Amino acid sequence: MTKKAVVVLSGGLDSTTVLYLARQRGHEIYALTFDYGQRHRIEIEHALEVAKGIAAQHKVLKLALDQIGGSSLTSDVEMPNFDSVDQIENKVYSTYTPFRNGVFLSYALAYAEVVGADTLFMGPNKDDFHNYPDCRPDFYKCFEMVANIGTKFGAEGGKFKIEIPLVDMYKPEIIKLGLSLGVDYGKTFSCYDPTPEGVSCGKCMSCNVRISSFTKANLCDPINYQTKK
Amino acid sequence: MTKKAVVVLSGGLDSTTVLYLARQRGHEIYALTFDYGQRHRIEIEHALEVAKGIAAQHKVLKLALDQIGGSSLTSDVEMPNFDSVDQIENKVYSTYTPFRNGVFLSYALAYAEVVGADTLFMGPNKDDFHNYPDCRPDFYKCFEMVANIGTKFGAEGGKFKIEIPLVDMYKPEIIKLGLSLGVDYGKTFSCYDPTPEGVSCGKCMSCNVRISSFTKANLCDPINYQTKK
Repeated sequence: MTKKAVVVLSGGLDSTTVLYLARQRGHEIYALTFDYGQRHRIEIEHALEVAKGIAAQHKVLKLALDQIGGSSLTSDVEMPNFDSVDQIENKVYSTYTPFRNGVFLSYALAYAEVVGADTLFMGPNKDDFHNYPDCRPDFYKCFEMVANIGTKFGAEGGKFKIEIPLVDMYKPEIIKLGLSLGVDYGKTFSCYDPTPEGVSCGKCMSCNVRISSFTKANLCDPINYQTKK
Repeated sequence: MTKKAVVVLSGGLDSTTVLYLARQRGHEIYALTFDYGQRHRIEIEHALEVAKGIAAQHKVLKLALDQIGGSSLTSDVEMPNFDSVDQIENKVYSTYTPFRNGVFLSYALAYAEVVGADTLFMGPNKDDFHNYPDCRPDFYKCFEMVANIGTKFGAEGGKFKIEIPLVDMYKPEIIKLGLSLGVDYGKTFSCYDPTPEGVSCGKCMSCNVRISSFTKANLCDPINYQTKK
Protein backbone atom coordinates (compact mmCIF):
# COMPACT_ATOMS: atom_id res chain seq x y z
CA MET A 1 0.00 0.00 0.00
CA THR A 2 1.30 3.42 -0.89
CA LYS A 3 2.08 5.43 2.21
CA LYS A 4 0.79 8.95 2.28
CA ALA A 5 3.14 11.79 3.18
CA VAL A 6 2.72 15.55 3.57
CA VAL A 7 5.55 17.54 1.99
CA VAL A 8 5.98 21.16 3.07
CA LEU A 9 6.88 22.80 -0.23
CA SER A 10 8.05 26.38 -0.71
CA GLY A 11 9.18 25.94 -4.30
CA GLY A 12 12.83 26.50 -3.35
CA LEU A 13 15.87 24.28 -3.86
CA ASP A 14 15.55 22.25 -0.69
CA SER A 15 11.85 21.54 -0.48
CA THR A 16 11.71 20.69 -4.19
CA THR A 17 14.52 18.17 -3.71
CA VAL A 18 12.64 16.74 -0.73
CA LEU A 19 9.51 16.44 -2.88
CA TYR A 20 11.43 14.33 -5.39
CA LEU A 21 12.97 12.25 -2.60
CA ALA A 22 9.55 11.54 -1.12
CA ARG A 23 8.37 10.43 -4.55
CA GLN A 24 11.41 8.18 -4.95
CA ARG A 25 10.56 6.56 -1.63
CA GLY A 26 7.16 5.68 -3.03
CA HIS A 27 4.94 8.01 -1.04
CA GLU A 28 1.60 9.33 -2.21
CA ILE A 29 2.31 13.03 -1.81
CA TYR A 30 0.14 15.72 -0.24
CA ALA A 31 2.01 18.95 -0.90
CA LEU A 32 1.41 21.93 1.37
CA THR A 33 2.44 25.48 0.53
CA PHE A 34 1.95 28.57 2.66
CA ASP A 35 0.91 32.04 1.63
CA TYR A 36 2.07 33.79 4.80
CA GLY A 37 2.41 37.32 3.52
CA GLN A 38 5.98 36.78 2.33
CA ARG A 39 7.21 39.47 -0.06
CA HIS A 40 8.47 36.66 -2.28
CA ARG A 41 4.94 35.32 -2.65
CA ILE A 42 5.83 34.47 -6.24
CA GLU A 43 7.47 31.32 -4.82
CA ILE A 44 3.95 29.88 -4.48
CA GLU A 45 3.57 29.76 -8.27
CA HIS A 46 6.87 27.92 -8.47
CA ALA A 47 5.73 25.47 -5.79
CA LEU A 48 2.56 24.76 -7.78
CA GLU A 49 4.61 24.25 -10.92
CA VAL A 50 7.19 21.86 -9.43
CA ALA A 51 4.51 19.73 -7.74
CA LYS A 52 2.50 19.29 -10.95
CA GLY A 53 2.27 15.62 -11.84
CA ILE A 54 4.00 14.63 -8.58
CA ALA A 55 1.61 15.57 -5.78
CA ALA A 56 -1.70 13.74 -5.47
CA GLN A 57 -3.08 16.86 -3.80
CA HIS A 58 -1.57 20.33 -3.36
CA LYS A 59 -3.00 22.72 -0.83
CA VAL A 60 -2.06 26.38 -0.50
CA LEU A 61 -3.02 27.81 2.88
CA LYS A 62 -3.30 31.50 3.72
CA LEU A 63 -1.67 32.16 7.08
CA ALA A 64 -1.79 35.23 9.31
CA LEU A 65 1.95 35.56 9.97
CA ASP A 66 2.03 38.98 8.30
CA GLN A 67 -0.44 40.18 10.93
CA ILE A 68 2.17 39.30 13.54
CA GLY A 69 5.17 40.67 11.64
CA GLY A 70 8.61 40.90 13.21
CA SER A 71 10.42 39.77 10.05
CA SER A 72 11.82 41.36 6.91
CA LEU A 73 10.04 38.62 4.93
CA THR A 74 6.56 39.61 6.10
CA SER A 75 6.69 43.21 7.28
CA ASP A 76 8.34 46.56 6.74
CA VAL A 77 11.63 45.55 8.34
CA GLU A 78 14.82 46.17 6.33
CA MET A 79 16.07 43.17 4.35
CA PRO A 80 19.79 42.48 4.82
CA ASN A 81 21.80 42.42 1.59
CA PHE A 82 25.24 40.93 1.01
CA ASP A 83 27.93 41.33 -1.64
CA SER A 84 29.08 37.79 -1.06
CA VAL A 85 28.08 34.71 0.90
CA ASP A 86 31.17 35.18 3.10
CA GLN A 87 29.56 38.26 4.65
CA ILE A 88 26.76 36.16 6.15
CA GLU A 89 27.48 35.66 9.83
CA ASN A 90 26.34 32.90 12.17
CA LYS A 91 23.49 34.85 13.69
CA VAL A 92 19.75 35.25 13.42
CA TYR A 93 18.97 38.03 10.92
CA SER A 94 15.68 39.83 10.37
CA THR A 95 14.82 37.20 7.76
CA TYR A 96 13.91 34.92 10.66
CA THR A 97 10.10 34.93 10.84
CA PRO A 98 9.12 34.25 14.46
CA PHE A 99 8.41 30.53 14.91
CA ARG A 100 7.46 30.25 11.26
CA ASN A 101 8.43 26.61 10.91
CA GLY A 102 6.51 25.79 14.09
CA VAL A 103 3.39 27.26 12.50
CA PHE A 104 4.15 25.40 9.25
CA LEU A 105 4.66 22.07 11.01
CA SER A 106 1.48 22.49 13.05
CA TYR A 107 -0.62 23.01 9.94
CA ALA A 108 1.21 20.16 8.20
CA LEU A 109 0.34 17.86 11.09
CA ALA A 110 -3.30 18.89 11.06
CA TYR A 111 -3.38 18.27 7.31
CA ALA A 112 -1.62 14.91 7.71
CA GLU A 113 -4.11 13.82 10.34
CA VAL A 114 -7.05 14.67 8.07
CA VAL A 115 -5.72 12.98 4.91
CA GLY A 116 -4.38 9.98 6.83
CA ALA A 117 -0.65 10.57 6.29
CA ASP A 118 1.76 9.45 9.00
CA THR A 119 4.87 11.06 7.52
CA LEU A 120 5.81 14.73 7.14
CA PHE A 121 8.73 15.93 5.04
CA MET A 122 10.58 19.21 5.42
CA GLY A 123 13.87 20.41 3.96
CA PRO A 124 16.08 21.98 6.66
CA ASN A 125 19.79 21.51 6.02
CA LYS A 126 23.26 22.47 7.17
CA ASP A 127 23.18 25.82 5.41
CA ASP A 128 20.12 26.88 7.47
CA PHE A 129 21.09 26.09 11.06
CA HIS A 130 23.19 29.18 11.79
CA ASN A 131 20.57 31.68 10.77
CA TYR A 132 17.33 29.89 11.62
CA PRO A 133 16.73 28.25 15.02
CA ASP A 134 13.58 26.62 13.66
CA CYS A 135 15.70 24.70 11.15
CA ARG A 136 17.79 22.81 13.72
CA PRO A 137 17.53 19.03 13.98
CA ASP A 138 16.59 19.13 17.69
CA PHE A 139 13.62 21.29 16.88
CA TYR A 140 12.21 18.64 14.54
CA LYS A 141 13.00 15.78 16.91
CA CYS A 142 11.17 17.54 19.73
CA PHE A 143 8.27 18.52 17.47
CA GLU A 144 7.84 14.88 16.54
CA MET A 145 7.30 14.13 20.24
CA VAL A 146 4.73 16.94 20.46
CA ALA A 147 3.00 15.54 17.38
CA ASN A 148 2.58 12.14 18.93
CA ILE A 149 1.37 13.47 22.28
CA GLY A 150 -1.02 16.13 21.00
CA THR A 151 -2.93 14.42 18.20
CA LYS A 152 -5.79 11.93 18.06
CA PHE A 153 -3.64 9.75 15.78
CA GLY A 154 -0.81 9.67 18.34
CA ALA A 155 -3.14 9.27 21.32
CA GLU A 156 -4.71 6.23 19.67
CA GLY A 157 -1.35 4.51 19.14
CA GLY A 158 -0.26 5.92 15.77
CA LYS A 159 3.24 7.22 15.21
CA PHE A 160 3.94 10.36 13.23
CA LYS A 161 7.37 10.62 11.65
CA ILE A 162 8.90 13.96 10.73
CA GLU A 163 11.45 13.29 8.02
CA ILE A 164 14.21 15.83 7.39
CA PRO A 165 16.33 13.94 4.85
CA LEU A 166 18.65 16.87 3.99
CA VAL A 167 19.64 17.60 7.56
CA ASP A 168 23.25 16.43 7.15
CA MET A 169 23.82 18.04 3.77
CA TYR A 170 24.96 21.41 2.45
CA LYS A 171 23.22 22.90 -0.55
CA PRO A 172 25.83 21.92 -3.20
CA GLU A 173 25.26 18.25 -2.32
CA ILE A 174 21.50 18.82 -2.26
CA ILE A 175 21.59 20.22 -5.80
CA LYS A 176 23.57 17.20 -7.02
CA LEU A 177 21.13 14.86 -5.30
CA GLY A 178 18.17 16.71 -6.84
CA LEU A 179 19.65 16.53 -10.33
CA SER A 180 20.10 12.77 -9.92
CA LEU A 181 16.39 12.59 -9.06
CA GLY A 182 15.34 14.66 -12.06
CA VAL A 183 14.71 18.07 -10.45
CA ASP A 184 14.63 21.00 -12.87
CA TYR A 185 16.08 23.79 -10.72
CA GLY A 186 15.05 26.29 -13.38
CA LYS A 187 11.54 25.90 -12.01
CA THR A 188 12.57 26.56 -8.40
CA PHE A 189 12.74 29.95 -6.72
CA SER A 190 14.81 31.10 -3.75
CA CYS A 191 14.93 34.93 -3.63
CA TYR A 192 13.52 36.78 -0.61
CA ASP A 193 13.18 40.11 -2.39
CA PRO A 194 12.36 39.69 -6.09
CA THR A 195 11.39 42.45 -8.52
CA PRO A 196 7.66 42.91 -9.17
CA GLU A 197 8.22 40.82 -12.31
CA GLY A 198 9.60 37.96 -10.24
CA VAL A 199 13.29 38.32 -11.06
CA SER A 200 15.61 37.23 -8.24
CA CYS A 201 17.57 40.10 -6.65
CA GLY A 202 20.95 38.39 -6.34
CA LYS A 203 21.70 40.32 -3.15
CA CYS A 204 19.57 38.81 -0.38
CA MET A 205 20.79 36.04 1.92
CA SER A 206 18.92 33.39 0.01
CA CYS A 207 20.20 34.45 -3.44
CA ASN A 208 23.77 34.64 -2.10
CA VAL A 209 23.59 31.13 -0.66
CA ARG A 210 21.99 29.74 -3.82
CA ILE A 211 24.50 31.34 -6.19
CA SER A 212 27.42 30.20 -4.07
CA SER A 213 26.03 26.66 -3.84
CA PHE A 214 25.78 26.24 -7.60
CA THR A 215 29.33 27.62 -7.93
CA LYS A 216 30.65 25.19 -5.29
CA ALA A 217 28.89 22.33 -7.08
CA ASN A 218 30.52 23.43 -10.38
CA LEU A 219 27.08 23.76 -11.89
CA CYS A 220 25.26 26.51 -13.68
CA ASP A 221 22.25 28.03 -11.90
CA PRO A 222 19.55 28.02 -14.58
CA ILE A 223 17.68 31.07 -13.24
CA ASN A 224 18.28 34.78 -13.88
CA TYR A 225 19.30 37.44 -11.38
CA GLN A 226 18.91 41.18 -11.44
CA THR A 227 22.48 41.57 -10.14
CA LYS A 228 24.61 38.97 -11.86
CA LYS A 229 27.64 37.87 -9.85
CA MET B 1 8.85 45.96 35.50
CA THR B 2 5.56 44.53 34.27
CA LYS B 3 6.10 41.22 32.54
CA LYS B 4 4.32 40.75 29.27
CA ALA B 5 2.24 37.62 28.69
CA VAL B 6 0.25 36.31 25.75
CA VAL B 7 -3.13 34.85 26.76
CA VAL B 8 -4.88 32.56 24.29
CA LEU B 9 -8.49 33.64 24.74
CA SER B 10 -11.55 31.95 23.23
CA GLY B 11 -14.08 33.81 25.36
CA GLY B 12 -15.12 30.61 27.16
CA LEU B 13 -15.10 29.76 30.88
CA ASP B 14 -11.53 28.54 31.11
CA SER B 15 -9.62 31.04 29.02
CA THR B 16 -11.53 33.94 30.59
CA THR B 17 -10.58 32.70 34.06
CA VAL B 18 -6.98 32.39 32.89
CA LEU B 19 -7.12 35.97 31.60
CA TYR B 20 -8.14 37.19 35.06
CA LEU B 21 -5.45 35.04 36.70
CA ALA B 22 -2.77 36.49 34.43
CA ARG B 23 -3.96 39.97 35.37
CA GLN B 24 -3.86 39.07 39.06
CA ARG B 25 -0.26 37.94 38.63
CA GLY B 26 0.59 41.41 37.34
CA HIS B 27 1.20 40.66 33.68
CA GLU B 28 0.74 43.15 30.87
CA ILE B 29 -1.63 41.11 28.73
CA TYR B 30 -1.53 40.48 24.99
CA ALA B 31 -4.73 38.58 24.24
CA LEU B 32 -4.89 36.39 21.18
CA THR B 33 -8.11 35.03 19.71
CA PHE B 34 -8.50 32.82 16.67
CA ASP B 35 -11.06 32.96 13.92
CA TYR B 36 -10.46 29.46 12.58
CA GLY B 37 -13.72 28.86 10.79
CA GLN B 38 -15.46 27.55 13.93
CA ARG B 39 -19.24 27.43 13.64
CA HIS B 40 -19.37 29.11 17.03
CA ARG B 41 -17.52 32.12 15.65
CA ILE B 42 -19.71 34.28 17.87
CA GLU B 43 -17.30 33.37 20.70
CA ILE B 44 -14.88 35.90 19.19
CA GLU B 45 -17.24 38.77 20.13
CA HIS B 46 -17.36 37.42 23.67
CA ALA B 47 -13.57 37.21 23.78
CA LEU B 48 -13.30 40.84 22.68
CA GLU B 49 -15.85 41.83 25.33
CA VAL B 50 -14.21 40.01 28.26
CA ALA B 51 -10.74 41.35 27.39
CA LYS B 52 -11.90 44.97 27.27
CA GLY B 53 -10.04 47.01 29.86
CA ILE B 54 -7.84 44.04 30.75
CA ALA B 55 -5.69 43.34 27.69
CA ALA B 56 -3.12 45.92 26.61
CA GLN B 57 -3.52 44.57 23.09
CA HIS B 58 -6.00 42.07 21.62
CA LYS B 59 -5.31 40.45 18.29
CA VAL B 60 -7.80 38.32 16.36
CA LEU B 61 -6.08 36.16 13.76
CA LYS B 62 -7.81 34.47 10.83
CA LEU B 63 -6.55 30.91 10.47
CA ALA B 64 -6.99 28.40 7.68
CA LEU B 65 -8.08 25.41 9.78
CA ASP B 66 -11.44 25.27 8.03
CA GLN B 67 -9.56 24.65 4.78
CA ILE B 68 -8.14 21.53 6.40
CA GLY B 69 -11.38 20.40 8.03
CA GLY B 70 -11.69 17.04 9.74
CA SER B 71 -13.75 18.40 12.65
CA SER B 72 -17.39 19.07 13.43
CA LEU B 73 -16.33 22.52 14.65
CA THR B 74 -14.95 23.61 11.30
CA SER B 75 -16.52 21.47 8.62
CA ASP B 76 -19.62 19.60 7.60
CA VAL B 77 -19.08 16.74 10.05
CA GLU B 78 -21.96 15.84 12.37
CA MET B 79 -21.82 17.43 15.82
CA PRO B 80 -22.37 14.95 18.68
CA ASN B 81 -25.23 15.86 21.01
CA PHE B 82 -25.90 14.56 24.50
CA ASP B 83 -28.89 14.48 26.82
CA SER B 84 -26.65 14.59 29.84
CA VAL B 85 -22.98 15.01 30.69
CA ASP B 86 -22.89 11.36 31.81
CA GLN B 87 -23.27 10.27 28.20
CA ILE B 88 -19.91 11.78 27.28
CA GLU B 89 -17.34 9.00 27.03
CA ASN B 90 -13.57 9.11 27.46
CA LYS B 91 -12.79 9.25 23.77
CA VAL B 92 -11.89 11.70 21.05
CA TYR B 93 -15.09 12.92 19.37
CA SER B 94 -15.45 14.76 16.08
CA THR B 95 -15.22 18.03 18.04
CA TYR B 96 -11.46 17.44 18.12
CA THR B 97 -10.00 19.77 15.49
CA PRO B 98 -6.76 18.20 14.24
CA PHE B 99 -3.79 19.65 16.15
CA ARG B 100 -5.75 22.86 16.76
CA ASN B 101 -3.97 23.75 19.97
CA GLY B 102 -0.62 23.12 18.32
CA VAL B 103 -1.52 25.68 15.67
CA PHE B 104 -2.79 28.06 18.39
CA LEU B 105 0.37 27.71 20.48
CA SER B 106 2.61 28.22 17.44
CA TYR B 107 0.92 31.51 16.59
CA ALA B 108 0.95 32.51 20.25
CA LEU B 109 4.68 31.92 20.40
CA ALA B 110 5.29 33.92 17.24
CA TYR B 111 3.18 36.74 18.70
CA ALA B 112 5.00 36.51 22.05
CA GLU B 113 8.36 36.74 20.34
CA VAL B 114 7.32 39.86 18.43
CA VAL B 115 5.79 41.74 21.40
CA GLY B 116 8.57 40.65 23.77
CA ALA B 117 6.49 38.41 26.05
CA ASP B 118 8.18 35.41 27.65
CA THR B 119 5.03 33.83 29.08
CA LEU B 120 2.08 32.18 27.35
CA PHE B 121 -1.16 31.31 29.12
CA MET B 122 -3.68 28.68 28.04
CA GLY B 123 -6.61 27.13 29.86
CA PRO B 124 -6.59 23.31 29.52
CA ASN B 125 -8.04 21.53 32.54
CA LYS B 126 -9.12 18.16 33.89
CA ASP B 127 -12.44 18.24 32.08
CA ASP B 128 -10.64 18.45 28.70
CA PHE B 129 -8.06 15.67 28.82
CA HIS B 130 -10.29 12.73 27.94
CA ASN B 131 -11.67 14.23 24.78
CA TYR B 132 -8.79 16.38 23.55
CA PRO B 133 -5.22 15.03 23.28
CA ASP B 134 -3.96 18.56 22.65
CA CYS B 135 -5.17 19.57 26.11
CA ARG B 136 -2.97 17.15 28.06
CA PRO B 137 -0.24 18.48 30.37
CA ASP B 138 2.54 16.54 28.59
CA PHE B 139 1.64 18.25 25.36
CA TYR B 140 2.26 21.67 26.90
CA LYS B 141 5.45 20.57 28.67
CA CYS B 142 6.85 19.22 25.42
CA PHE B 143 5.73 22.27 23.45
CA GLU B 144 7.62 24.47 25.90
CA MET B 145 10.79 22.57 24.96
CA VAL B 146 10.04 23.07 21.27
CA ALA B 147 9.48 26.77 21.94
CA ASN B 148 12.88 27.20 23.51
CA ILE B 149 14.71 25.24 20.82
CA GLY B 150 12.98 26.71 17.78
CA THR B 151 12.86 30.45 18.46
CA LYS B 152 15.40 33.26 18.25
CA PHE B 153 14.51 34.18 21.84
CA GLY B 154 15.26 30.67 23.08
CA ALA B 155 18.39 30.27 20.90
CA GLU B 156 19.79 33.48 22.38
CA GLY B 157 19.34 32.29 25.97
CA GLY B 158 15.77 33.38 26.72
CA LYS B 159 13.31 31.03 28.37
CA PHE B 160 9.68 30.81 27.29
CA LYS B 161 7.22 29.59 29.89
CA ILE B 162 3.90 28.04 28.92
CA GLU B 163 1.58 28.48 31.88
CA ILE B 164 -1.47 26.20 32.22
CA PRO B 165 -2.72 27.24 35.67
CA LEU B 166 -6.02 25.30 35.49
CA VAL B 167 -4.41 21.98 34.64
CA ASP B 168 -5.22 20.35 37.98
CA MET B 169 -8.76 21.69 38.25
CA TYR B 170 -12.22 20.65 37.13
CA LYS B 171 -14.60 23.28 35.82
CA PRO B 172 -16.67 23.74 39.01
CA GLU B 173 -13.50 24.80 40.85
CA ILE B 174 -12.50 26.98 37.91
CA ILE B 175 -15.81 28.83 38.06
CA LYS B 176 -15.39 29.46 41.79
CA LEU B 177 -11.85 30.70 41.22
CA GLY B 178 -13.04 32.97 38.43
CA LEU B 179 -15.82 34.46 40.55
CA SER B 180 -13.27 35.22 43.29
CA LEU B 181 -11.25 37.10 40.64
CA GLY B 182 -14.25 39.07 39.41
CA VAL B 183 -15.12 37.19 36.22
CA ASP B 184 -18.63 37.85 34.88
CA TYR B 185 -19.50 34.47 33.35
CA GLY B 186 -22.54 36.05 31.73
CA LYS B 187 -20.11 37.53 29.20
CA THR B 188 -18.46 34.19 28.41
CA PHE B 189 -19.57 31.74 25.74
CA SER B 190 -19.06 27.96 25.49
CA CYS B 191 -21.49 26.48 22.95
CA TYR B 192 -20.13 24.68 19.87
CA ASP B 193 -23.35 24.93 17.90
CA PRO B 194 -25.30 28.11 18.70
CA THR B 195 -28.37 29.41 16.89
CA PRO B 196 -27.78 32.09 14.26
CA GLU B 197 -28.78 34.61 16.96
CA GLY B 198 -26.00 33.32 19.22
CA VAL B 199 -28.11 31.37 21.73
CA SER B 200 -26.33 28.34 23.22
CA CYS B 201 -27.80 25.00 22.12
CA GLY B 202 -27.68 23.21 25.48
CA LYS B 203 -27.02 19.86 23.75
CA CYS B 204 -23.45 19.90 22.52
CA MET B 205 -20.54 18.53 24.55
CA SER B 206 -19.44 21.97 25.64
CA CYS B 207 -22.93 23.11 26.78
CA ASN B 208 -23.42 19.84 28.69
CA VAL B 209 -20.11 20.22 30.52
CA ARG B 210 -20.78 23.88 31.30
CA ILE B 211 -24.31 23.30 32.60
CA SER B 212 -23.18 20.38 34.73
CA SER B 213 -20.23 22.36 36.11
CA PHE B 214 -22.43 25.22 37.34
CA THR B 215 -24.78 22.67 38.89
CA LYS B 216 -21.90 20.90 40.65
CA ALA B 217 -20.64 24.25 41.93
CA ASN B 218 -24.15 25.04 43.24
CA LEU B 219 -24.16 28.17 41.15
CA CYS B 220 -26.49 29.61 38.57
CA ASP B 221 -25.23 29.79 35.01
CA PRO B 222 -26.08 33.35 33.95
CA ILE B 223 -26.49 32.57 30.23
CA ASN B 224 -29.50 31.32 28.29
CA TYR B 225 -29.91 28.01 26.48
CA GLN B 226 -32.21 26.99 23.68
CA THR B 227 -32.87 23.68 25.45
CA LYS B 228 -33.11 24.39 29.14
CA LYS B 229 -32.13 21.46 31.35
